Amino acid sequence: MKIGILTSGGDCPGLNAVIRGAVLKGIKAYGHTFVGFRDGWRGVVDGEVLELPREKVRGISKQGGTILGTSRTNPFDGPNGGAHNIKMTLVSLGIDALIAIGGEGTLAAAQRLSQEGLKIVGVPKTVDNDLAATDYTFGFDTAVQIATEAIDRLRTTGESHHRCMVAEVMGRHAGWIALHAGMAAGAHAILIPEQPVSAAQIATWVQEAQRRGRAPLVVVAEGFIEQGQEAAHSGRGLDTFGRPRLGGIGEKLAPEIEARTGIETRATVLGHIQRGGVPSAFDRVLATRLGMAAVDSVAHNRWGTMVTLKGTSIESIDFDTALGSLKTVPQERWDEASLLFG
Amino acid sequence: MKIGILTSGGDCPGLNAVIRGAVLKGIKAYGHTFVGFRDGWRGVVDGEVLELPREKVRGISKQGGTILGTSRTNPFDGPNGGAHNIKMTLVSLGIDALIAIGGEGTLAAAQRLSQEGLKIVGVPKTVDNDLAATDYTFGFDTAVQIATEAIDRLRTTGESHHRCMVAEVMGRHAGWIALHAGMAAGAHAILIPEQPVSAAQIATWVQEAQRRGRAPLVVVAEGFIEQGQEAAHSGRGLDTFGRPRLGGIGEKLAPEIEARTGIETRATVLGHIQRGGVPSAFDRVLATRLGMAAVDSVAHNRWGTMVTLKGTSIESIDFDTALGSLKTVPQERWDEASLLFG
Amino acid sequence: MKIGILTSGGDCPGLNAVIRGAVLKGIKAYGHTFVGFRDGWRGVVDGEVLELPREKVRGISKQGGTILGTSRTNPFDGPNGGAHNIKMTLVSLGIDALIAIGGEGTLAAAQRLSQEGLKIVGVPKTVDNDLAATDYTFGFDTAVQIATEAIDRLRTTGESHHRCMVAEVMGRHAGWIALHAGMAAGAHAILIPEQPVSAAQIATWVQEAQRRGRAPLVVVAEGFIEQGQEAAHSGRGLDTFGRPRLGGIGEKLAPEIEARTGIETRATVLGHIQRGGVPSAFDRVLATRLGMAAVDSVAHNRWGTMVTLKGTSIESIDFDTALGSLKTVPQERWDEASLLFG
Amino acid sequence: MKIGILTSGGDCPGLNAVIRGAVLKGIKAYGHTFVGFRDGWRGVVDGEVLELPREKVRGISKQGGTILGTSRTNPFDGPNGGAHNIKMTLVSLGIDALIAIGGEGTLAAAQRLSQEGLKIVGVPKTVDNDLAATDYTFGFDTAVQIATEAIDRLRTTGESHHRCMVAEVMGRHAGWIALHAGMAAGAHAILIPEQPVSAAQIATWVQEAQRRGRAPLVVVAEGFIEQGQEAAHSGRGLDTFGRPRLGGIGEKLAPEIEARTGIETRATVLGHIQRGGVPSAFDRVLATRLGMAAVDSVAHNRWGTMVTLKGTSIESIDFDTALGSLKTVPQERWDEASLLFG
Repeated sequence: MKIGILTSGGDCPGLNAVIRGAVLKGIKAYGHTFVGFRDGWRGVVDGEVLELPREKVRGISKQGGTILGTSRTNPFDGPNGGAHNIKMTLVSLGIDALIAIGGEGTLAAAQRLSQEGLKIVGVPKTVDNDLAATDYTFGFDTAVQIATEAIDRLRTTGESHHRCMVAEVMGRHAGWIALHAGMAAGAHAILIPEQPVSAAQIATWVQEAQRRGRAPLVVVAEGFIEQGQEAAHSGRGLDTFGRPRLGGIGEKLAPEIEARTGIETRATVLGHIQRGGVPSAFDRVLATRLGMAAVDSVAHNRWGTMVTLKGTSIESIDFDTALGSLKTVPQERWDEASLLFG
Repeated sequence: MKIGILTSGGDCPGLNAVIRGAVLKGIKAYGHTFVGFRDGWRGVVDGEVLELPREKVRGISKQGGTILGTSRTNPFDGPNGGAHNIKMTLVSLGIDALIAIGGEGTLAAAQRLSQEGLKIVGVPKTVDNDLAATDYTFGFDTAVQIATEAIDRLRTTGESHHRCMVAEVMGRHAGWIALHAGMAAGAHAILIPEQPVSAAQIATWVQEAQRRGRAPLVVVAEGFIEQGQEAAHSGRGLDTFGRPRLGGIGEKLAPEIEARTGIETRATVLGHIQRGGVPSAFDRVLATRLGMAAVDSVAHNRWGTMVTLKGTSIESIDFDTALGSLKTVPQERWDEASLLFG
Repeated sequence: MKIGILTSGGDCPGLNAVIRGAVLKGIKAYGHTFVGFRDGWRGVVDGEVLELPREKVRGISKQGGTILGTSRTNPFDGPNGGAHNIKMTLVSLGIDALIAIGGEGTLAAAQRLSQEGLKIVGVPKTVDNDLAATDYTFGFDTAVQIATEAIDRLRTTGESHHRCMVAEVMGRHAGWIALHAGMAAGAHAILIPEQPVSAAQIATWVQEAQRRGRAPLVVVAEGFIEQGQEAAHSGRGLDTFGRPRLGGIGEKLAPEIEARTGIETRATVLGHIQRGGVPSAFDRVLATRLGMAAVDSVAHNRWGTMVTLKGTSIESIDFDTALGSLKTVPQERWDEASLLFG
Repeated sequence: MKIGILTSGGDCPGLNAVIRGAVLKGIKAYGHTFVGFRDGWRGVVDGEVLELPREKVRGISKQGGTILGTSRTNPFDGPNGGAHNIKMTLVSLGIDALIAIGGEGTLAAAQRLSQEGLKIVGVPKTVDNDLAATDYTFGFDTAVQIATEAIDRLRTTGESHHRCMVAEVMGRHAGWIALHAGMAAGAHAILIPEQPVSAAQIATWVQEAQRRGRAPLVVVAEGFIEQGQEAAHSGRGLDTFGRPRLGGIGEKLAPEIEARTGIETRATVLGHIQRGGVPSAFDRVLATRLGMAAVDSVAHNRWGTMVTLKGTSIESIDFDTALGSLKTVPQERWDEASLLFG
């Protein structure tokens, strides 16, 4: 059996470990051969592949990014896109099945292609950890660890200068990275998209921390919107990918906090460093296991499914069950974390 | 309510985050006060405590070890030990309830004291991850991360010198650290207490890796016993804590591998560096949540229980259900990992 | 003898190691006592000190920031400022000599106070490494290491997405951090204040790297000014500390590069994470030695001098010789580094 | 011009950065071509090379070990060894000059070959930092950083258990790694080959630290010999490389300290993790510059010389001046460090 693998959407620590896990297990347990599509769906649509013999995946599980390249191409766009054309391309390449590694958008495309008869298995990927069907996604642990280390560093500067430090982390629609990095770093306020909070409340937490002699530390997810600012926000329009225009919340909050509290405040946007580089051991293990399980799904003809983590087990779930709802931070996790604010 | 906290047994990254989580939640949510016992059960038996006001736990979640100190004292030993004496001591100190943070031995003692009427809640702690009632214990993730980083370093030396590198990691009765660090680092053989393997098999894996042009990498848990060596092992007697005398497996294996394969082989014992220092973000979050949940258990009079992680939730479980069985690496996890050997 | 220590200006990894080195050597070798001024010159002017017995400096050399606090206060400002008032304050506190740890501004103030009769010894501090009298300043190595690790992470994202990544690092007047982090990370262009370069030249380097199949990587110091933009820059006025308004060069360059090359380009501003947190071993050793040497200078009445690193030795140099000129990146270091561009 | 590069002796972080620096500068500045010899002098003697075009050195400066492999082969041994045979081999391969990267032994061999007419330039390499002609060797900074981080981790275990922790680090003949890592980590005793110290003195330092409430921390170089044990030591004979048999000093010291002080004591041997893995930014910059300078030496016919670091400059020095004496820790550095013991 010849299997094609693709990685799609934003890069994420652990992608290469998924690829390696799938290729090694496929070769050793089932005698499969593998090719990788270049740059996600673009390579599928264009029929551009590279061979993936065992040597090609050697040592890559500790390497960030994806050796296959990635893009945000939609497989239904363009003259060669759509289920029919892709089927023809796969036939001409002699490819029997696809393993698609990607986020909600990639998996939704995989679901649609599957419904139209393609043999596809999915592997969930989102650094933001916002896919509903899995306890954790690989890449999330690495992002939280990098963010936490960076915030630990910001704290000593805040303390030396008696400043309030604001750290903006990833999290467009869900505040998982902010929640975990903020708890790990002992933040005095964590601001997430799920929980609008007023500037007055933020200032209160900052002042409480300062009154106890602390340098206030605020961790904010990029998708956070201040209470009362939703309208202004919605007016900002869409970015080039059709998403609400985000970003800059850290730089916006810092002067507001300074104005309300009188405490000198500085913002740092952690940005792309959260998603690149060497994956944590946790993510390497999780990603390797998911890649191996995806090949098992192929071997058992579990088309239209994706692999997931439940507790400590890797399981399989239908796209139809898995997709459609975002995994946001539930109220009880917010209540738990917010008790420590101020 | 005045609550006494103790940390017992080997130190573990995250102990201080448990203490901080418990103290902050107890103060903020319930108005409790806290004291810490010095050096585990020793401080309980001797009635030696330090006050734990909020300032005392400030910033400690990123600090390795335990601010309370620890020891291997058995609370039933000595003239002041035993349930009756301890009850008297707690009364004299005005302490209403205990939170005991420790491993199987500590929790078994807590169970017995609980049966004799003390108000105790437990928090599971083992760097080896071998407690049955919880998906993961804090400290394990940090240990795996440190071991993985160290093994990544060993690999480049192996490759430059065309050597086989053997890394001995912790894991007396269960091979979790070896399993995870070995998978994360891409080891060509992982040797764990649960799975006796012959020297001949190990040599075969090493030679397979070498034939593919790799520098063979073997990760071995300290408690691993070669197939056929069980008798010799049992003859080694008990250490000062009454445990089978272990250690030195790495140094023992290296010359054996060299003799059987002709490949120059070097062993490194990672040792104590795996259990000290700054906890990973994962462990800080887990430990903080466990500490907070332990205080909830106290507030709800869940005496004789311990807090655990199930999936992404913190739950509560009776000592009687939780204790008594070791969580070893199950066969399917071994099968999954061993497919990648050689 | 009673010695007062102050840390002034921006915080820097290693400040606490200087304090510890001075206090330990002063106590053990000379029997001195120590106090620390709170928040740099502000504490001197206001006479606000904390005692520095041996216990107070315990374990602080691995701690970022400064336990004394810092500020940008000028000791000649305000009703209690100026040499005469400060002398009176020191007399009233029983302080015999000052150790001032700070950058060009702090040391220039120390020089002036010394000329007016105060007993002062200086310790050079600048994360930017731009003080002329010393081979390296502590904090610089840590900043370069943090920046290099972050840039290593950015690279895998650039490669996966076929993007050009721009990393903005510290370096207002001198490009040392950019030079070293850029060389360490293998940047395809390094842009520093000392070497104006045109946008066309930058685009050429980026395109050369891309043509060789690389994801172009540009490291830019915050003080870099594009060739031909000097006038526009000078029009930006001064910031609140009287310095030319800087910052934002990364965000400015990214769209320019994208427009000229057609390569998707993303900027990341590393910002405050470069100056906080645990110092590197190099910086801990250097800072400890400088602190110890500063106390020797006090013991030998070397007033009006500062301690410096020359090769592997700690030496002493007059303020008059040391100050007044910035240590910028010399032409030969630029020639050496720029040969690797493109 | 065609240049052959070899790396010889123990691996060291930064070897690949030297190779990359040399190859890139040679190609870009001089139009040279490069080959690498496999496994040090063995590849020279056997005439076994791999091509080193630009693509081959891509991204390797952050990679530990050496892409060329290494060995301890002596180029004067064997039927194909010796200056005459090597000359013939180089002629047959069309190689005009050699860049030899290695330690005292490698460079002494290079010196002898140079005296016999071969065109050779050396690059000093020793993780132990014990080469006299250079301020620092690459790899040393990485080793010190790794050791310091590991010792920081040991400390929290020591403090939690009230134990004395002994960390054995590299340093066969010179105590540089112990000196720097010990100073950086705040050790209460640093034991180096240059300074025999009695067990009684060590116990005194340990007890002093304990009396101040600290968990005593001892850093010992593998080549340290207790005062009074020199004879016993010399009786241990020579290892397979003709060096005095060393190692195990940590395991030997721990029970001695425990017996003399009554403080539970544990030893950890850091071992091979100190010399592998990703080099520090400092080492990457130093190694890159040395590699580039070695090519300049070739271009200027500086045969029989090696490149060195003096202050912040890369210089060139004759083998005859450079070799023959070990750079040990001087008395003043010992006095400086030992003042902080106890």
